[in-house]
Amino acid sequence: VAAPTAAPASRRTVDLPALVERALDGEQRAVARLITLVEDASPRLREVMAALAPHTGRARIIGLTGSPGVGKSTSVAALVTAFRAQGRRVGVLAVDPSSPFSGGALLGDRVRMQEHATDPGVFIRSMASRGHLGGLSWATPQALRILDAAGAEVILVETVGVGQAEVEVASLADTTIVLVAPGMGDAIQAAKAGILEVADVFIVNKADRDGADNAVRDLRNMLSYGDGPHGAWRPPIVRTVASRQEGVGDVLAAVEAHHEWLESTGELTRRRTDRAAAEIEAIALAQVRARFGDLHGAVALPALAGRVVAGEIDPYSAADELVASVTEA
Amino acid sequence: VAAPTAAPASRRTVDLPALVERALDGEQRAVARLITLVEDASPRLREVMAALAPHTGRARIIGLTGSPGVGKSTSVAALVTAFRAQGRRVGVLAVDPSSPFSGGALLGDRVRMQEHATDPGVFIRSMASRGHLGGLSWATPQALRILDAAGAEVILVETVGVGQAEVEVASLADTTIVLVAPGMGDAIQAAKAGILEVADVFIVNKADRDGADNAVRDLRNMLSYGDGPHGAWRPPIVRTVASRQEGVGDVLAAVEAHHEWLESTGELTRRRTDRAAAEIEAIALAQVRARFGDLHGAVALPALAGRVVAGEIDPYSAADELVASVTEA
Repeated sequence: VAAPTAAPASRRTVDLPALVERALDGEQRAVARLITLVEDASPRLREVMAALAPHTGRARIIGLTGSPGVGKSTSVAALVTAFRAQGRRVGVLAVDPSSPFSGGALLGDRVRMQEHATDPGVFIRSMASRGHLGGLSWATPQALRILDAAGAEVILVETVGVGQAEVEVASLADTTIVLVAPGMGDAIQAAKAGILEVADVFIVNKADRDGADNAVRDLRNMLSYGDGPHGAWRPPIVRTVASRQEGVGDVLAAVEAHHEWLESTGELTRRRTDRAAAEIEAIALAQVRARFGDLHGAVALPALAGRVVAGEIDPYSAADELVASVTEA
Repeated sequence: VAAPTAAPASRRTVDLPALVERALDGEQRAVARLITLVEDASPRLREVMAALAPHTGRARIIGLTGSPGVGKSTSVAALVTAFRAQGRRVGVLAVDPSSPFSGGALLGDRVRMQEHATDPGVFIRSMASRGHLGGLSWATPQALRILDAAGAEVILVETVGVGQAEVEVASLADTTIVLVAPGMGDAIQAAKAGILEVADVFIVNKADRDGADNAVRDLRNMLSYGDGPHGAWRPPIVRTVASRQEGVGDVLAAVEAHHEWLESTGELTRRRTDRAAAEIEAIALAQVRARFGDLHGAVALPALAGRVVAGEIDPYSAADELVASVTEA
């Protein structure tokens, strides 16, 4: 993935410790440069993450997903407005798992977001994830870590896409908001894609339109199947007209209530630990895979593959040799 | 993934060497049992693959993909008929990467395929792949290996799904056939999804319908962008009416010509070696990942994750510790 926001020459000569210091001070350009390193899968990320580690863990991560047309970007902009009114610093990360392109494309046409573009308390970034090994599981947590260390108190992660991507965004967030709109049959789609299970808060946006009551009822009917044990979280359904900022306060209240539930039950720590475990594992597997590629001599992967094609060994024995060559080095 | 074709009890007591012998003799029930082991991700697959290895490498793998409604199953049935008329033993593997279910669902309603169901020279199987780590990259090659060893001279791999799945099936096959139908805008869809690049042969099915000429022209226009160097393969466009067996002979001729090109250029060996390398790597990564999960003590993944959440270490350092704990064991 090319990085449209920084010329290669300037990146090559970058003073990384200074850049990290500036990012920790919340300087937007420095934050942007560091996220570009994530998109580039830069080997220097290791240094960056080591320097940022002590400054992470404070941001609340809110995932936001839904089908195209439900008003995701309008809702994100409305939430940013509401969080800013509370005086909180906000990060917005829009992830498009299906696009190999990054930079401004995803957010470029978002007029409402541009209200926030000049606010030093808001950091907005879109990011591609497809090119990376492991996709969302690898790149997005790194970007979140950068925003967190840079002082974002709330980070909104928005994904476009269907099914898998929406379930993945949930695994990144403390609180996952699923948006639906009247008349789109979203509730049924969401049920099919396994999204109902991952939602912590539902928003029925465009609630001034016909069919809003039906959408709420559909969701409620489907959620009743999922009644959990005593003390379980029951995802509230909030109506909004995000374009007029209506109901957005209720969303913030629902998110706040969910956060309190997460903290009081220990679920917050559990979710974050699971997330970190997945992130560590993804990095570790990428490292092992890189070692596979670095091997030379008789046990190199192409040689093993040739022997499998010739029927000399089976793929499991070949895999044993490959793993042994890495672990016994 | 549960295996609907064999009861757990019978699997537990299975005489694997005898089962492998029967599969090598081409006995259909034995082949089915072995593929069920793949779906179950059985630890005994290792034994199976070791025994089968010397008997593999003869089958030609033909991938077949296209949007729903283009007539994929009818075309597969027509191709089976044509290959059987040549006296070749045929395997059919229908892979549904989006489905966690396996067994007969995918092929159950295929009337045309049932003509072949009682032919001992045809082996038909549908298979889910979603549940497996690595999906197609892991499970499908194992099933192909079983069919190959059991004596299938031609194996048709059919995938349903869009985009990623279609590109993946191409990576499994010696020859990839992409089906389109008139009036579906398939050529444009295919171009978007990156499928034009992976097609070795195009079929315009339902060629007796209005719009067939347009479909052929659309494909031709888009392919002209991809003119390769001298000696490169230019994917032919074949018209068929698979339901009446029309044009199917032309498809076989195109597949045969492609196979000759693959052999004469060394591309066949290259493709198969790449495929085996990907398979070995997927198995090796799964093994390493299993070791991560097996770890105990201070370096266990959850403990590392807890330290990352607390900001004590960064995820890269944690990944280093995880890899070291596996490689220095």
